[in-house]
Amino acid sequence: MTDTAPRPTLEAVAARAGVSRATVSRVVNGSHGVRERLAERVRRAVEELGYVPNQAARSLVTKRHDAIAVIVAEPETRVFADPFFARQLRGISKELTAHDNQLVLLLTEDRDDHVRVGRYVAGGHVDGALVFSLHIDDPLPELIRQAGLPTVYGGRPDFGGGQDGVVYVDSDNRGGARDAVRHLLGLGRSRIAHITGALDQTAAVDRLDGFRDVMADADPRLVVEGDFTPASGERAMRELLDRRPGPDAVFAGNDLMAAGALRVLREHGRRVPDDVAVVGFDDMLPIAEQTDPPLTTVRQDIEEMGRLMARLLLRDLNGTGTPSEAAGAGSGGLVLPTTLIRRASA
Amino acid sequence: MTDTAPRPTLEAVAARAGVSRATVSRVVNGSHGVRERLAERVRRAVEELGYVPNQAARSLVTKRHDAIAVIVAEPETRVFADPFFARQLRGISKELTAHDNQLVLLLTEDRDDHVRVGRYVAGGHVDGALVFSLHIDDPLPELIRQAGLPTVYGGRPDFGGGQDGVVYVDSDNRGGARDAVRHLLGLGRSRIAHITGALDQTAAVDRLDGFRDVMADADPRLVVEGDFTPASGERAMRELLDRRPGPDAVFAGNDLMAAGALRVLREHGRRVPDDVAVVGFDDMLPIAEQTDPPLTTVRQDIEEMGRLMARLLLRDLNGTGTPSEAAGAGSGGLVLPTTLIRRASA
Repeated sequence: MTDTAPRPTLEAVAARAGVSRATVSRVVNGSHGVRERLAERVRRAVEELGYVPNQAARSLVTKRHDAIAVIVAEPETRVFADPFFARQLRGISKELTAHDNQLVLLLTEDRDDHVRVGRYVAGGHVDGALVFSLHIDDPLPELIRQAGLPTVYGGRPDFGGGQDGVVYVDSDNRGGARDAVRHLLGLGRSRIAHITGALDQTAAVDRLDGFRDVMADADPRLVVEGDFTPASGERAMRELLDRRPGPDAVFAGNDLMAAGALRVLREHGRRVPDDVAVVGFDDMLPIAEQTDPPLTTVRQDIEEMGRLMARLLLRDLNGTGTPSEAAGAGSGGLVLPTTLIRRASA
Repeated sequence: MTDTAPRPTLEAVAARAGVSRATVSRVVNGSHGVRERLAERVRRAVEELGYVPNQAARSLVTKRHDAIAVIVAEPETRVFADPFFARQLRGISKELTAHDNQLVLLLTEDRDDHVRVGRYVAGGHVDGALVFSLHIDDPLPELIRQAGLPTVYGGRPDFGGGQDGVVYVDSDNRGGARDAVRHLLGLGRSRIAHITGALDQTAAVDRLDGFRDVMADADPRLVVEGDFTPASGERAMRELLDRRPGPDAVFAGNDLMAAGALRVLREHGRRVPDDVAVVGFDDMLPIAEQTDPPLTTVRQDIEEMGRLMARLLLRDLNGTGTPSEAAGAGSGGLVLPTTLIRRASA
């Protein structure tokens, strides 16, 4: 099936580029100290000849694969349906590409597949791992820990007892939620409902905690669990409209659920924000601007979170500080601020 | 950063599951001949102990990584923006998961990164590759060929001279395009325009050929090049509306461009299908049903294409026929039929 012609050698590349073998080797192995003009000539010769460095030999010298596993602990269908993941991956991809590291996205169908993912990352195919959208009790972190791989998490992991040296990047979910609810109180609303995300994820738990910080005496029937999907926002909003008395405001745990809630309110002839004010979370564009009415929401910089995750990991791999040092002494978490964005819905 | 506790051994798993070491080994290495009840007990013990098999040792025995690279020759932003890719990946993911193979998606920012991708797949991290959305002159196929990796392509590759043993799965793009144009002729349309996909991709070229098969004498100003994105469909439709006389029908090279064209026609107060009939390609749901009016289009089974690609590759790896044998003697291509789906737009 494959016609295995002899591979071009390092020597052939050197001859073509008119440089020494050592220079080619340095460029191919990503060492510094080669003038850009020469490096460019080598890269052109590499491409023209279709030279593929012997990875095994190269790895022996550098002990690196220049490849980073990215593991989204969600089924592949959700990864492509929820723009949150695309945005975080974009940040990761830009940062890894800028450092000539290959992004290796390990897709799964369900949680049973996480054992296979653990086996792959333990198999010496990548230098480190970026893991996000963990659910509580997910076996993945333990498998990765046993593989001894440098790892940075997206979102605060919940390992039950907590572990030293765990590094993560997160948004200020609790503070952002407090801002959202205080904004609704400031509009004179009193029966404020909350549609939560999937409560086996810390982002959802933290946003619920923020809601409760402000609404300590909230009617518990005004808190309905969703799962971050638009359909769950619709379902939760229908439940909330059955309550007597009903809510005069809704804080949804993300924009996709808020968009679902807005659709149901419109179906039922409720005016937004007059009858029911709605606030989301994420500031997922263009969705947040295209809802009817446009959505007031809590902005988090999702792409920047991805970029930071990659940056912390690469710093660790390059020996310029462990991720936990880079993330700040005494803390494994780098927590980014959120901002309330006012549009028409609240 | 990582607490490297001693890894649990094969023996520990055997003790926990109450089976022999050989039984654990067979289950872990995916061999047959272990009763399901025992295999289940082993899998539970593996998960409870967080056992990770020694991949290097395992690979020495099986010479397999049980991992397949999937390379979409598009920037990461397009992979997530165009549902075509999610659908093809879904088919691939289901098939690989069913055979306990890890899907390793190699993301890139642009074509310059393809050399790095070639290096990764040549580095002994995967057993084979599935490659789709190639553009003409892409260096990737040559890099993969040199790596000697079994490969199946999604969409007919264009290697200039053609190569023996190249295996691909495609849809009948040319036949589907002919059906679309004949349908428009059957509606009594005479000034039929075509918005093409990116003409550095064979799918776009083949659909244009199908259009020309039927419209040999078409006004060349009624063919406008797009690039498969909704924005290019809008731009192309605006150009077509500037023509005198304008088109009374449009065949768009995919549904996303058709949806863009419909938006522009509405903006300009043209009635669809009365003034201008529109046909797309893909039958991408829910988009094709949710346009205004719903879209008449050429259906191709994108998920099935993904599944078939994975199946042909796994068959080759398992020694039950090379992909080219599996794809049918005398041909490296498996070409799936298309179907015209009639809705309101034409």
